[in-house]
This record gives sequence, structure tokens and C-alpha cells, in this order.
Amino acid sequence: MTKPIWIKHAAQLATLASEVKGPRSKGKMSELGLIEDGSVWIEDGMIQAVGTTKELEERFADKVYEAEIVDASNHLVTPGLVDPHTHVVYGGSREREFEMRLEGASYMDIMNAGGGIHATTRMTREATEEELIDQTKRRLDSFFSHGVTTIEGKSGYGMNLETELKQLRVMKKLQEQHAIDIVPTFMGAHAIPPDFKGREDDFVNHLIDEMLPVVAEEKLAEFNDVFCEKGVYTPEQSERILEAGKRFGLMPKIHADEIEPYGGAELAAKVGAISAEHLLKASAEGIKAMAESGTIACLLPATALYLREEAAAGRRMVDEGVSVAISTDCNPGSSPTTSMPLVMNLACISMRLTPAEALTAATYNAACAINRQERVGSLEVGKQADMVMWNVKNYQELQYLFGVNHVKSVWKKGVKVV
Amino acid sequence: MTKPIWIKHAAQLATLASEVKGPRSKGKMSELGLIEDGSVWIEDGMIQAVGTTKELEERFADKVYEAEIVDASNHLVTPGLVDPHTHVVYGGSREREFEMRLEGASYMDIMNAGGGIHATTRMTREATEEELIDQTKRRLDSFFSHGVTTIEGKSGYGMNLETELKQLRVMKKLQEQHAIDIVPTFMGAHAIPPDFKGREDDFVNHLIDEMLPVVAEEKLAEFNDVFCEKGVYTPEQSERILEAGKRFGLMPKIHADEIEPYGGAELAAKVGAISAEHLLKASAEGIKAMAESGTIACLLPATALYLREEAAAGRRMVDEGVSVAISTDCNPGSSPTTSMPLVMNLACISMRLTPAEALTAATYNAACAINRQERVGSLEVGKQADMVMWNVKNYQELQYLFGVNHVKSVWKKGVKVV
Repeated sequence: MTKPIWIKHAAQLATLASEVKGPRSKGKMSELGLIEDGSVWIEDGMIQAVGTTKELEERFADKVYEAEIVDASNHLVTPGLVDPHTHVVYGGSREREFEMRLEGASYMDIMNAGGGIHATTRMTREATEEELIDQTKRRLDSFFSHGVTTIEGKSGYGMNLETELKQLRVMKKLQEQHAIDIVPTFMGAHAIPPDFKGREDDFVNHLIDEMLPVVAEEKLAEFNDVFCEKGVYTPEQSERILEAGKRFGLMPKIHADEIEPYGGAELAAKVGAISAEHLLKASAEGIKAMAESGTIACLLPATALYLREEAAAGRRMVDEGVSVAISTDCNPGSSPTTSMPLVMNLACISMRLTPAEALTAATYNAACAINRQERVGSLEVGKQADMVMWNVKNYQELQYLFGVNHVKSVWKKGVKVV
Repeated sequence: MTKPIWIKHAAQLATLASEVKGPRSKGKMSELGLIEDGSVWIEDGMIQAVGTTKELEERFADKVYEAEIVDASNHLVTPGLVDPHTHVVYGGSREREFEMRLEGASYMDIMNAGGGIHATTRMTREATEEELIDQTKRRLDSFFSHGVTTIEGKSGYGMNLETELKQLRVMKKLQEQHAIDIVPTFMGAHAIPPDFKGREDDFVNHLIDEMLPVVAEEKLAEFNDVFCEKGVYTPEQSERILEAGKRFGLMPKIHADEIEPYGGAELAAKVGAISAEHLLKASAEGIKAMAESGTIACLLPATALYLREEAAAGRRMVDEGVSVAISTDCNPGSSPTTSMPLVMNLACISMRLTPAEALTAATYNAACAINRQERVGSLEVGKQADMVMWNVKNYQELQYLFGVNHVKSVWKKGVKVV
């Protein structure tokens, strides 16, 4: 039994508490449940009470002397951030490819030099589990230092059964070895494996018949994701994969409409996907369908920045009633970053979300996008004590003073990890 | 007499040393003077030797035992970053204005609510010297934590003699009270003061006759800057101001061609400005003129991001022979950030500089833009021991793993400040 922790006198405590259950849309994304001079009482890693410092002072009068006290005066305190879309487990590094591109190398130059996603696939296939664990742990530490206490992680750099399972097993081990929470997604359909080029349906059959059953049998994933895009998987192939996953108890996610409008958002709504990802080019009909089905839009503005694409229409999606979450998309090709604080800034700058909406998108709605809203994403009694104390006074400054990681301290299940 | 410091075994030491003196252009911006297994020997805050660890081991064999040793294995080590363009001294904060804009407020709504640059002018006029020192110190600490060891700072939120002098005196005091180096610039012509609206020439006369002499007399600035832009100061007015400054020994700088092509780059070349700033809309002729005159282009890609403008044509300027420096533009309106690491990332992502060019632009060329290249900006014998050890292995990773502040340790004149 550890000492209770009392975080008190927060200049602003953004609880994100709400009567609304499930993903928040429209005006609900602006309701941060703010408490001035806020306090949180933590016991055994769980939140026991939330309120003003005065309220908790009275309530815990006889326990105050045994508690560890954290003075949060002049600081904003929020739930730990949640990153609902990462490809965090991968082998190798591609900084030289980044440089080559800026030195003027063409796409083919880079492919010929062994670059691109297939480079990561090769390096991930070659890496041992231990090597992947080592590399990934450093990224998980970096997530912690950026205030992120729960992440989703996808397989998808294997594109063969053995390596897909290796990536998922690495996540399972990291869930045991590292304090961060990792929620695993199977993404065997992340690209077309070179050896299946021209016979994509064979790979879809292989994935459904050979891969999904093993992933489900070993309980290695909760979600099933597919890259639905022209030249990758068609909406029909994507639907088959996602419906097959559902039969194995895997909830659908979908990389949709990143490069051109391709019916991905519509398909997400149709199959009842928990979230659709990217959506840079989602159609008006697709956005409407998502608003109606309650599918969460998981938007990735750091990826858009890195690829010099126009960011997704976040403002419009919120206005049309879609619940928006945001994520780093952490991956070695199109978004090698772990900074959710920057992603929140970009949600405001590039997608025109308000500071309050950006925080909701990075906490409660992000938790909903990976089905963790009962445990994390807001500061409410009975939830995990996943919290961040920031070097700013209020939630507006967190976005206004951009490009800076304002994290001061981070608690995961009541344990101070930063 | 303090102990010598020996930083050794740097995986990669980017010295930025070169035979070339003065701002670097074209291919010279890619020459980082890299040393593998690099070492730096520091005594009394100055660099005594730079080389491989083996070389320094032999040279200092009899002094090794008295030195403080820093193991930089697996780390990139570079000169301290230099930020050659900031408006770091200001009163108040405008995060609520940022939020209002995202909530849909118009420019006029914000002006009516007392926002915009005139809000900062009002708050800077109202602040005491002590309040400004306190506020600014926090920003200087943040610069340190982002690896920045020398900055330029501008006046310009006074627009009357009293407050302009207050800003400059605050910088002078901070130079004494804080370890960072601050290089002061007078920028009385930052906007048209509301009480001179419609009689701008009167203000120009006032600035030349009443303000410049006092600034020069009190030795409060080294540079003289002007916002040359349609609706602000014309090229003719700007030229008068800059030429007058030269007579007082102040080197010209110029905010040029930010909003539309207005002959600012051309004027910078004509008056022999040490640098021209922003340049988002600089003309082809202006770029050519700058290349010929050796005027440094000081580019501000974080400002472009924040304002959702296309970044300056950094790639083209380098290719055409202009020496490029980069900066945060730290200010409360269009770039409230202190993150030079993000600015370097954006120089690559948005302006297509290579990782090597971005590092040169943030160190040696930035030092040249504020006439400090004899003291800082590269790791060479006899220069200040201003250095950064990074949590990456090489200069490519510093830009590739974007959005993350990779600073591990920072030394200012041989003193560890982070």
C-alpha cells in the first residue's frame, strides 16, 4: 500500500469530466470540466476524488498527514494524453533517406538505395524481438516525456505472419515491461507485400485465413486496421478484411482517404469502424456518414506537415458533428515524432480546432478511439491516475505557446514517471 | 580558476569550423566540419582544443586527471544555437486572443477587445522594468532548454522613446543577470504608433532626431531595424531610418517583403544591411541583389507556420547564393515560441534546406547575422565554449526526428546551464 498522493492548488484543473459517455462531438468537445484551485486525491494508482482544494481539504482532513503532497500552484493539470494511432514498433532508422530527399533524390533514387516502407519492413523482419523491444522502449520513454500515458500500436511492418506476430508480441511484452499502456492493433494490410504484387486478393485471403485466426487465438490485438487507398487495398478488399476481423472479435479501424477520396470514410461508417484515420481527402458524404455512425475521425496533422499536405478538415468535421481525435502517427516514414503537444498545437494552427477542442481530441476522444474511455482520458473517480502537470497556467497557453513541450511532471497509475 | 572540462567520445562532433570567414552560402552551408569520436577541451569558458578523442588524449595527457569529464558517447555535439531575431522583451500574454481567433472572432472583434500588437504595446508600456525582466527571464531559460545560447532581441513594443529605452535597458540588465548572451537591436519603427497615424513622416523625423541619438548615446543597441511593408514604412522612409542609424554606428537590419513584394530585399542590399528578415514574398531581383551584397536572409519558418503562410523560398535562396540564417521570431503575436529545434525542423520540412544547411543556418550563419561570428557559432579554438549535447547520434536525426526537443545538456561559456 503506497502513500496517497494529493495534487493540490492546480491553477487550472482540466478534468474532461462529463455526463456524456462515449466520443464527444460539437460543443461537447469544448467542455473541459475546468476547476480553479483544483485538487486530485490518488490512492493505489486510482483517482479517489476530484474537486477544489478546499473540498478535498475538508474531505481528507484526517488523511492529509499521510499523503504525499504535490503543489500545482501556477500550473495547468490535465489527464495524461492518449495517442490513438502509432506504428511505434519498427526496426532501423531512416534519417539518411530524409536527407537524400532534401538533397534532391527522387523517389526512385530512394527506392534503389533500399528506402521507403519496404526498408522498414526489411529492418523489422531482420530485428530480433529484443532489438525491437530496446528500440521501442526509447520511443515509449519519449512519449512519457511528452505527457502521453497511453498509446495504440500497430503491426504492419511485417507483411508476413511471422513478423506481424513478432511486432504484436513485442507490444505484449512492452505492456509488461514498460509503465505506459499499449493497446495493440493488427495491421497486416498496411501495404501490398512485394511478393503478392498483382495478386492482391491472394494476400487478402491469406490474411483472412492464415493471419487473423492466429492473432485472435493468441489474443494479440483488439483492433484490425487496413490501408484503404488507391493502389493499396480497395474498399471491397478492405471491407472483407474488416468484416473478417469482426468475426474474430477485432474492432475495425481504417486508414482512409489519405491520398485521394476513395470511399474510405463511407466504408468506416458502413462497417461500424471505431475510428477512421488520416481523412485528408474525405468526401462531404463520407464526413456526413461518419457523423451519423459515430465513427471517430482520428486526424494526424503532424503527418500532413511532414509530407507538406494540407491538413484534414478538422474544423469542418467538428462543425458537422464528427467526434475528432488526434494522434502523432509515430512512424519512421511520414511522421517520425512522439510529440503529442506539437500535434495539439497543429490541431489548432492547421486544422483550426480551438484550444479546448484540441485538448479533448488528445485525451477523452483519443481514449474513445481505442476503447479505453472507461479507464483513461479524463480525471474522474475510479479512473487510472494518469495525469500531467504542465509549465503553463491554463489550457489556452498550452496551445498558444507552440512548439514547446510544456510537460513538467507525469504520473502513470499514480506513479511519477517524469 | 575552474576545472577544465573535457567533452569526449562524441559520436559526431559538428564543429562548423571552416576556413571561410563571414556568412556561408551554397555548398559551404553543408560543410559541418564533422569529427567522429570527437572531443572538446574547455578552460575558463573558452575552447582550448577541438579534435578526435585520441588527439586530445595525447595532447592533454598530463592534465586529464584534473579535468571534469563528460562522456558524449552516442551523442551529437554542436555549437550552441544562435537565434538572430527575437522580440523577446514584452509585457503581457495573448493566449486568449489566440483562442478567440479560433472561436471565429474577426480581426475587428480582436481589435475591439483590445488585441493585436497594440495590446502588447499597451502592456509593455504599463509593465515596470522589473516585471519585464521577470517575464523575459522565463523565456531566456526556455531558450537555454532548447539549446540556444545567444539571441538577438529587439525593442519595438514601445513606439515612444520612454518604452523603447525601457525595453533596451531591460536587455542590458538581462545581459548582466542571465547567462545567455543578448544582442540588442533598436526597432522604434516596428509599427505606426496610433498617435502618428496619417503623419508617418513626422514619426520618422521624431525617430531620427529624438530617439536614435539617445539610443546611440547610451550604447543601448548594435543594430537598427525597421518594418518595411505596405501600410507600415515605405522603402524611402525605411532607407532614411537605416541611413540615419548608420551615422550613429548602428548596423541596419530590415523586416522585408513579409506580406507582399515591396522592394525590401533590394533595399537591404542597397543600404548594406547585415540581414533582411522574413522575405516570404521577396522578388527574384531582391534575392539576386542580396546574394551579390552578401546580405544574410534571416528566415522565420515558425512564423509562417503559425500564420499559415507559405514559408520563404529558403531552398531557392541557398541555390542562388544567399547566405541563410533561421530564427524563432519569438514574439507574442505571430510566433510565441522559443524552439529553435522546431525552427530547424521546419527549415527542412517547409523550406527544403538539407539537415546540414539547417544546422549552419541556426549556428554559424545566425552568428554572422548578429555580428558574433568571432565569438560563437562554431567550435573553434579561442571561441566561447557554447555547446549542446543532443539525444541523437547524428545531425540528420536532429532534423528527421522532428517536433522533439532533443537537447540533453547545454554549456554557456563552459558553464552547464541545462
